[in-house]
Amino acid sequence: MSLGNRVDALVAPKGALEILSQDEIARLSEDSGQLHELFRRCALAILNCGSDSDDPQAILNEFRDFNIEIIQQERGVKLRLTNAPSSAFVDGKMIRSVREMLFSVLRDIVFTYHEYDLEKSLDSAPSNKITNVVFQLLRNANVFRRNPELDLVVCWGGHSIARHEYEYTKHVGHELGLRDLNICTGCGPGAMKGPMKGAAIAHAKQRIQNGVYLGLTEPGIIAAESPNPIVNQLVIMPDIEKRLEAFVRTGHGIIVFPGGAGTAEEILYLLGILLHPANDDIDYPLIFTGPSASAAYFEQIDDFIGSVLGEKAQSKYEIIIDDAAAVAKTMQEKMRTVKRYRKEHHDAFYFNWKLHIPEEFQHPFEPTHEKMAALNLHFEQDVHLLAADLRRAFSSIVAGNVKAQGVAYIKEHGPFKIHGDKALLAKLDKLLTAFVEQQRMKLPGSVYTPCYEVITD
Amino acid sequence: MSLGNRVDALVAPKGALEILSQDEIARLSEDSGQLHELFRRCALAILNCGSDSDDPQAILNEFRDFNIEIIQQERGVKLRLTNAPSSAFVDGKMIRSVREMLFSVLRDIVFTYHEYDLEKSLDSAPSNKITNVVFQLLRNANVFRRNPELDLVVCWGGHSIARHEYEYTKHVGHELGLRDLNICTGCGPGAMKGPMKGAAIAHAKQRIQNGVYLGLTEPGIIAAESPNPIVNQLVIMPDIEKRLEAFVRTGHGIIVFPGGAGTAEEILYLLGILLHPANDDIDYPLIFTGPSASAAYFEQIDDFIGSVLGEKAQSKYEIIIDDAAAVAKTMQEKMRTVKRYRKEHHDAFYFNWKLHIPEEFQHPFEPTHEKMAALNLHFEQDVHLLAADLRRAFSSIVAGNVKAQGVAYIKEHGPFKIHGDKALLAKLDKLLTAFVEQQRMKLPGSVYTPCYEVITD
Amino acid sequence: MSLGNRVDALVAPKGALEILSQDEIARLSEDSGQLHELFRRCALAILNCGSDSDDPQAILNEFRDFNIEIIQQERGVKLRLTNAPSSAFVDGKMIRSVREMLFSVLRDIVFTYHEYDLEKSLDSAPSNKITNVVFQLLRNANVFRRNPELDLVVCWGGHSIARHEYEYTKHVGHELGLRDLNICTGCGPGAMKGPMKGAAIAHAKQRIQNGVYLGLTEPGIIAAESPNPIVNQLVIMPDIEKRLEAFVRTGHGIIVFPGGAGTAEEILYLLGILLHPANDDIDYPLIFTGPSASAAYFEQIDDFIGSVLGEKAQSKYEIIIDDAAAVAKTMQEKMRTVKRYRKEHHDAFYFNWKLHIPEEFQHPFEPTHEKMAALNLHFEQDVHLLAADLRRAFSSIVAGNVKAQGVAYIKEHGPFKIHGDKALLAKLDKLLTAFVEQQRMKLPGSVYTPCYEVITD
Amino acid sequence: MSLGNRVDALVAPKGALEILSQDEIARLSEDSGQLHELFRRCALAILNCGSDSDDPQAILNEFRDFNIEIIQQERGVKLRLTNAPSSAFVDGKMIRSVREMLFSVLRDIVFTYHEYDLEKSLDSAPSNKITNVVFQLLRNANVFRRNPELDLVVCWGGHSIARHEYEYTKHVGHELGLRDLNICTGCGPGAMKGPMKGAAIAHAKQRIQNGVYLGLTEPGIIAAESPNPIVNQLVIMPDIEKRLEAFVRTGHGIIVFPGGAGTAEEILYLLGILLHPANDDIDYPLIFTGPSASAAYFEQIDDFIGSVLGEKAQSKYEIIIDDAAAVAKTMQEKMRTVKRYRKEHHDAFYFNWKLHIPEEFQHPFEPTHEKMAALNLHFEQDVHLLAADLRRAFSSIVAGNVKAQGVAYIKEHGPFKIHGDKALLAKLDKLLTAFVEQQRMKLPGSVYTPCYEVITD
Repeated sequence: MSLGNRVDALVAPKGALEILSQDEIARLSEDSGQLHELFRRCALAILNCGSDSDDPQAILNEFRDFNIEIIQQERGVKLRLTNAPSSAFVDGKMIRSVREMLFSVLRDIVFTYHEYDLEKSLDSAPSNKITNVVFQLLRNANVFRRNPELDLVVCWGGHSIARHEYEYTKHVGHELGLRDLNICTGCGPGAMKGPMKGAAIAHAKQRIQNGVYLGLTEPGIIAAESPNPIVNQLVIMPDIEKRLEAFVRTGHGIIVFPGGAGTAEEILYLLGILLHPANDDIDYPLIFTGPSASAAYFEQIDDFIGSVLGEKAQSKYEIIIDDAAAVAKTMQEKMRTVKRYRKEHHDAFYFNWKLHIPEEFQHPFEPTHEKMAALNLHFEQDVHLLAADLRRAFSSIVAGNVKAQGVAYIKEHGPFKIHGDKALLAKLDKLLTAFVEQQRMKLPGSVYTPCYEVITD
Repeated sequence: MSLGNRVDALVAPKGALEILSQDEIARLSEDSGQLHELFRRCALAILNCGSDSDDPQAILNEFRDFNIEIIQQERGVKLRLTNAPSSAFVDGKMIRSVREMLFSVLRDIVFTYHEYDLEKSLDSAPSNKITNVVFQLLRNANVFRRNPELDLVVCWGGHSIARHEYEYTKHVGHELGLRDLNICTGCGPGAMKGPMKGAAIAHAKQRIQNGVYLGLTEPGIIAAESPNPIVNQLVIMPDIEKRLEAFVRTGHGIIVFPGGAGTAEEILYLLGILLHPANDDIDYPLIFTGPSASAAYFEQIDDFIGSVLGEKAQSKYEIIIDDAAAVAKTMQEKMRTVKRYRKEHHDAFYFNWKLHIPEEFQHPFEPTHEKMAALNLHFEQDVHLLAADLRRAFSSIVAGNVKAQGVAYIKEHGPFKIHGDKALLAKLDKLLTAFVEQQRMKLPGSVYTPCYEVITD
Repeated sequence: MSLGNRVDALVAPKGALEILSQDEIARLSEDSGQLHELFRRCALAILNCGSDSDDPQAILNEFRDFNIEIIQQERGVKLRLTNAPSSAFVDGKMIRSVREMLFSVLRDIVFTYHEYDLEKSLDSAPSNKITNVVFQLLRNANVFRRNPELDLVVCWGGHSIARHEYEYTKHVGHELGLRDLNICTGCGPGAMKGPMKGAAIAHAKQRIQNGVYLGLTEPGIIAAESPNPIVNQLVIMPDIEKRLEAFVRTGHGIIVFPGGAGTAEEILYLLGILLHPANDDIDYPLIFTGPSASAAYFEQIDDFIGSVLGEKAQSKYEIIIDDAAAVAKTMQEKMRTVKRYRKEHHDAFYFNWKLHIPEEFQHPFEPTHEKMAALNLHFEQDVHLLAADLRRAFSSIVAGNVKAQGVAYIKEHGPFKIHGDKALLAKLDKLLTAFVEQQRMKLPGSVYTPCYEVITD
Repeated sequence: MSLGNRVDALVAPKGALEILSQDEIARLSEDSGQLHELFRRCALAILNCGSDSDDPQAILNEFRDFNIEIIQQERGVKLRLTNAPSSAFVDGKMIRSVREMLFSVLRDIVFTYHEYDLEKSLDSAPSNKITNVVFQLLRNANVFRRNPELDLVVCWGGHSIARHEYEYTKHVGHELGLRDLNICTGCGPGAMKGPMKGAAIAHAKQRIQNGVYLGLTEPGIIAAESPNPIVNQLVIMPDIEKRLEAFVRTGHGIIVFPGGAGTAEEILYLLGILLHPANDDIDYPLIFTGPSASAAYFEQIDDFIGSVLGEKAQSKYEIIIDDAAAVAKTMQEKMRTVKRYRKEHHDAFYFNWKLHIPEEFQHPFEPTHEKMAALNLHFEQDVHLLAADLRRAFSSIVAGNVKAQGVAYIKEHGPFKIHGDKALLAKLDKLLTAFVEQQRMKLPGSVYTPCYEVITD
């Protein structure tokens, strides 16, 4: 890529940031080294979403000279870009979706940071406060619709799945879209893109012009997994845990496609919450699905859940193999139950307030040897607490596998040691080994060196 | 009116309060005796706007048993009304505009009180902070439009003007509306209703479906002057001074019709600001107008301004007598200059940030004998400061004339004593006497006993 | 009015005439002396609707030099106006509603004349063909809405009613509008304007932005009764009979206010149709209403109908005195029955196909002495045929009273002679005499010389 | 496919056919054997568009028992389907785009047939009359938009092009869509689908919700080439010639991708028209483009045109190889010239009235040995007449290659004999041979037996 592929531009926002007070603009423009660098990196990820590369480090190197400044005017805020990737522009004008996403980044990274005082306030906040901030971030991003129907299906699954698995996610998205359902994913490639693509075509067939393709991401991921171009609403939540809470509170049902450690983390997050006694009477539509060739994958997952978390956990989901239409129909039927419940309990249609999310699932977990060693992976405890610690273990493995900071940490200190109950760890080891064999831990083709050791006490 | 004319109802909001967080709903529902009574009174004023009476005390007595409660639900807030005036309902369903205005009251009285911590924060706040809160209140009320044109004409004038004067305000409103201009007033009767009525008919003729009829009021006035039914946006600002600031910052030009002490207060407020050196290069379209029979009124006003504030003050406005079309055309032309200025200086089209409003015009003035005696009504000072104190004098006379608290105060302590420069006070006395003679100080027919004495040093 | 009050302009259409084929434009532009003069007169009536005068002859004299030409371009048709009344313009630009109505005239007078070959085809056409053309004219005017509700209330009544009667029509319109109902009238002043005005205010209160104020007129009336400015849909039907058919087929219910011979004509038209055996199972909401002071009027009408057409005719309507809310509520309830009927019988919501209109009510009646003498006003016949001939008698009296051609005819040939059954004519004479006494035959103040003589055989 | 894959349904229209008069409904419902079979076949093609097969005969056999009836009701027309392909339905409800297209077929095949009396009237009609009917059919299909910009790009090219050629058509569509341009094609697969697909993705990126994907087809083709699901406006023109006229009059510019005999027919049609002296001053944006690997194809075409029709013909188009962005930019620039011309000459933006289309290009050509033998393929004539006959020769080859009737004809009577000027036929033979070698005459893989012989005199 030559230096010629650069554009300088001055762009004005559309939407939430169009009308700001002078105070708000001033706070937005305050110099803050660390925040600015985070903003710059996320902005670059967005601007580069038209390109083929998705190696964040390579992009950062290539566009070392890219800069972004916030311009303060009474009329409102503007962004001045220098040396921006030309792929974000057509004949010198920024593509509208790119402009929207760029201002989503400004809104979620810079604006909410100041307005909600995120840095200080959230880490020690009580559960209730965190939920309210999650709500406000989503409302501020205009995610809530006053729709008389429940229609938002969250799709989880791996970002580097096999071709036949990807095709299947498109089929499921297509069947969902044909039934007027909308899609929310983590907004990267693979199982995050397929369902949106399928739904977009189905929405066109059904003449639905206001289809929702909601992408929920967080600063650590956005650079590695640029939002796919179908995403028409983008929210950058402050961290993994807030993002997971946003998924389960805005979605009306969840479909899980095949994936690796990250998908396992998501499954354990949701099951842990659903296993909390306060949520006993809450129906949450949850379907695991994949093509025939992936049937074994879900058998392993189901077996692991059964033996580690028990039958109650298994009762929380349904497994449907190779039947996209059945997945969509089942989801639609289950959502009717959810609708009835929300009406009866005066809960909002656009946000699941009634679901109790214990604090164990809300606060960020920093993956270090000490914290990993301190995880309580024994059977003798409340099952939702065990799920919480298992979630943390998988989250750490994801970091050690692919996140820049995690990879560096493992290089320096060696693999994480996972301690715990012998029988339990045996099950865990078996599952992880299967992931390795199925090449779900890293991009296909590369040799995987585990970032963890299972140590039975 | 019999007790049968009562309705109990449960109503849900539309608009800004539809989607609230649990925290916000909880704060909204907090018990607060004083705030609740203010909310109840304002709500009653709105619910009663279909009735003929506009004596707030009579209405309060009649509907002693009216109550309003805030119901807290996850799904959102609701209002439970008991013994509400039936005139707000059709076949048991609340009229939609009444519902909208009721929730405007909840938003502006209760919600913003908590969210912006209004009680504590504003009184000692710096100028800049006050302006930002005025902006936020208006934005929260969805007043700002991203319109490529300037089109909002503020109309000031008396609420109990003569029939021919009222007809003239309708003609001016009609000519404004024919030119696609929108109207903002204080939202009561008289000169606050006529321009909206004329514009509404003109907008229908011009097939404009989104005409704006913005009413800006404050808690002390809303009960006495219920919003007329043409108002389709209602904002209740916290006090007189914030309301005046809202007028001059959202309006793109101002037309002054005949009125009494209140109108004089408004004129002095705006001239005082425009005479501040920081505003020397700011064009603010300002037209005084009335029918032929009211020509003398504006001669008196003009004479008073000329002799007290000087020629520069007179250069800030234009007087047009009995020519509604000329008023509208002149306003439209002047607004083009304003548009050019805002573009050049990157100021917003929907809020006049560049106008400097000195603190003297922003903080509330409590009319007491001490404060009146302390007013500095001498020539030897900056002319904008003299205007500020004259504004306060007129504001106090309005209170002593018609506001419940002010009337009681005068009854107890006798008339205000106005001290100052002899020549200046002679001019003031002459103007006030003319107002009395023209029956502009009180409703026509009643005998006026002045609430003030002019005392020359 | 000076010659200065003239404007020359070139205007392009909005709506149905925007996109025409070259063939259509060519036909539209064909020279046709008689049609052009009709078009010119109707256009002048529209352009003049802002003025105070409603004397068509005076206006025609005043604007002798006004002309209107159709300009043919590939891009579409345009109208060139010379010496047009300036009241139709603001700062040189035509008011949008005037422009719309002007093109309604072009569409209904010129375009449909050619496209449907109106001159030749309709007079000898069978009933069915006439109904289809009425449908096509209304569809072409975009009158039909795909609304899931029945909501169009036709209001009939006099154009020169007393003040208290006019106020009452506004109250009824207001109560209809509060219940989301829309209004259709003959589009002139009096009982044709009041209900629209009341409904427009009520629609604003209910935040209804797409209220329908449909005016149905015909070339003989439009010049005398310019559409009031509230009308937002205007259709010029080819003659009285097609206009009456348009009323009863598009309206979902009819309210009759006090009026004179014209109103009696309308009542007899509708009763005659409803008395036809083919319509026995059709419910047609029909309410006669007026303020208390007008109660006697409806007693006389009811008495006349009872004694001449019988009890079955009286069963077709309800009389409600001085209760606007009851009128609106009753209408709303009755329309529910109509809705049920249309659903069951697969009839359209926007056009009453099932109602049978006998040919006697469809073909134009030319009022001459010969034709009047030939009317069959005896009891020994089908009651709907008697109603048809009574309708013709009243229609002729209207012409002899106020229509230019009819007045000239009476001047030349003397009053019409009405022959018939003695008892029947006594009833008729009594009713007409009451109309004269109540000053319903001509504008209040003028002395009425009857244009008819009742001659008992 | 089992018999179980059948659905019975009753469907009501959306759009133009929603509001019909009883006369129109009666005409629509008239029994007409031949027309009904045509309607049934086209309807089946639409209903089957979700399936994989595109062999019309196989589908007709498979769905022998499919039937479609028009149900007549006052409320409007309905369609009763029996044994319809289930792929057109989701959970028993017809997919909305399928329903729309089904009623496009009813509108264009049945309704216009009666309303415009197509059978009798068009064949012997003068040029002007044909153009007016083409206009009315397109207007009736709601194709015309009152857009202030020219933005409709017609894309021509083969339906069975190679993969790399298909990918290139997507790239061009993408670049057009990024520039807010819309797409019109013949609505089948290949070069008719690629540009729409690319544009649809680009429109999503540019947040354009009302993108136009206009498909123009005709009864002979629709069964073989089902509209792709991106098409959101479908018009079935009566025959090939009207369809070609619709392309050139509604499109604002044309892009030609590689194709076979059909594409050559389209090129000769347009060049023939542009070479007519009456069109000398008309700029018509025309670009031939393909990927690098297809460069030779356009060299051959260009060489043929140069040597047969001359340099003037070559001056009418531009060839751009392998540069999708340049194609889009060039098209956009050229359309600015067209816009200027239409403004200056008062021509419509939505229909090119000024372009003269000689009758030779408007009347259907029936491919028989006699007619082929009668073609005048010599140099000594007006070049636009030569182009007209060459167009007919290619049209016949298309029929002989792939249309059911043409194939049967050739089987029975042997190949067409093409007579003409020796030098000219040599050029033609060379081009046709190249098409055969490049496998552009039939689907790749099959052996092509020519349906023609070139016979030099």
